Amino acid sequence: MMKIVSENKCFGGRQLICAHDSTTTGTPMRFSVYMPGMKDGENAPVIWWLSGLTCTEENFTFKSGAQKHASENGVIIVAPDTSPRGANIAGEDDAYDFGTGAGFYVDAAVAPWSKNYRMFSYIGEELPQVVGANFAADMSRQSIMGHSMGGHGALILALKNPQRYRAVSAFSPICHPSGCAWGQKALAGYLGDDKTEWKKWDATELINAGAKCPEIWAEQGAADEFLSSGQLMPEALAGACAKANQPLIMNMREGYDHSYYFISTFLGDHITKHAAALRA
Amino acid sequence: MMKIVSENKCFGGRQLICAHDSTTTGTPMRFSVYMPGMKDGENAPVIWWLSGLTCTEENFTFKSGAQKHASENGVIIVAPDTSPRGANIAGEDDAYDFGTGAGFYVDAAVAPWSKNYRMFSYIGEELPQVVGANFAADMSRQSIMGHSMGGHGALILALKNPQRYRAVSAFSPICHPSGCAWGQKALAGYLGDDKTEWKKWDATELINAGAKCPEIWAEQGAADEFLSSGQLMPEALAGACAKANQPLIMNMREGYDHSYYFISTFLGDHITKHAAALRA
Repeated sequence: MMKIVSENKCFGGRQLICAHDSTTTGTPMRFSVYMPGMKDGENAPVIWWLSGLTCTEENFTFKSGAQKHASENGVIIVAPDTSPRGANIAGEDDAYDFGTGAGFYVDAAVAPWSKNYRMFSYIGEELPQVVGANFAADMSRQSIMGHSMGGHGALILALKNPQRYRAVSAFSPICHPSGCAWGQKALAGYLGDDKTEWKKWDATELINAGAKCPEIWAEQGAADEFLSSGQLMPEALAGACAKANQPLIMNMREGYDHSYYFISTFLGDHITKHAAALRA
Repeated sequence: MMKIVSENKCFGGRQLICAHDSTTTGTPMRFSVYMPGMKDGENAPVIWWLSGLTCTEENFTFKSGAQKHASENGVIIVAPDTSPRGANIAGEDDAYDFGTGAGFYVDAAVAPWSKNYRMFSYIGEELPQVVGANFAADMSRQSIMGHSMGGHGALILALKNPQRYRAVSAFSPICHPSGCAWGQKALAGYLGDDKTEWKKWDATELINAGAKCPEIWAEQGAADEFLSSGQLMPEALAGACAKANQPLIMNMREGYDHSYYFISTFLGDHITKHAAALRA
């Protein structure tokens, strides 16, 4: 059973934090839902927001300013947590970039992570059922966006489910985890050392292998410290899209960094574009 | 010397956290400044935001969504901290509603608080000089707003300096601290037991005594738990304004609570109104 942890009226709608026991992760999970104001009997499409390393369901909810745009566009936004918590796996809390807060939106394949760290299936399968059962949500109209680790999550969810999401946006995404330190650590830990397995969970490699999704809308801050340190690799995504004829809009924004100050600046445009695609 | 602790590009402008050593409080102090995008040689008017109990300069900065509205309206917003910190006064950290995080925007009159807890003078005198010296700010055009304890702070700053602020807004303000538990504790602690002194720092009593300010724009959530528990007393402010012919717009908003979800919903309207008053 889902329960409501908190509820606050916001821009004429409701901002909720919800909790449930996930069968996919085997742990309690929390997520945030913004419900725009609606008349009885109406429903609204759903935009998924996947957050980055160290985040919970709260960061986006507190810091993005999304509610104004969701209200104006009549869309629901669901922001899940970024990993199971309290799985009681040795080492799960040892690093900010692996384990708790760092699920990377994959289904882990190796013990001990494979039992609980199944965020791909959780986001793609279980949570849509929970949302559909508890809210006036039209689950036939979904789109997805995210930030950093969650930007990559949005890309792989869309690429591996090309019919499900009508739009996909990525803010400062990790574009090619097999090629960067964050991703190599995560993929080795969750999937093991066989790099042919990694390719099934790497957006750039999925596109290289022929996967398609709706036009990818990517925002990247040119002053992002993780861009200059080589963790994000938008050039790898752009190269793969060009070769594969996968539509991509990549906006490189002068002076912006990796923070929610960057996200909030451009989020309204993305929510408006997603809403148009969801209504089309 | 003021130093910049952090700087992030946001909505075409700059969101800064700044620190300096205050001569008024005798402690290091932090404040947040949003600078809208401007051409060289231009300056912009300043809106002050005073936060509520337990807040630092970060709460408003992270949660209000103010930057979008400040950018669109070409105004600077400065959000100070809510008290000195680290004054090393016995008991300063014992309660959420007195001492650290709870300066109440008064100048304390009794020891040991009178040495450091001088937020009224800090906000009204010292910090404007710091801002004016370090930023392209037109200090001849100021307005003020705040939330809860800070809503009352905005009211008393405006009422005690009727020529300085061109507009004044209060979200969920404590309207009559002499009449509520929060205020009685704070005023007794900072000012002593003589209730004639309290009247000089109580917005409702100041209006009763003939003080005037620009039209007061107040927003109040009807579902605010601190309204129902008697801490806010908008009826006292409304009664005093009616008797004194002090202009007041009091919006009672159905279903909204005391949180930043409420503030963010209506903040854009207030920033736009302040900007119009500041440009007039």
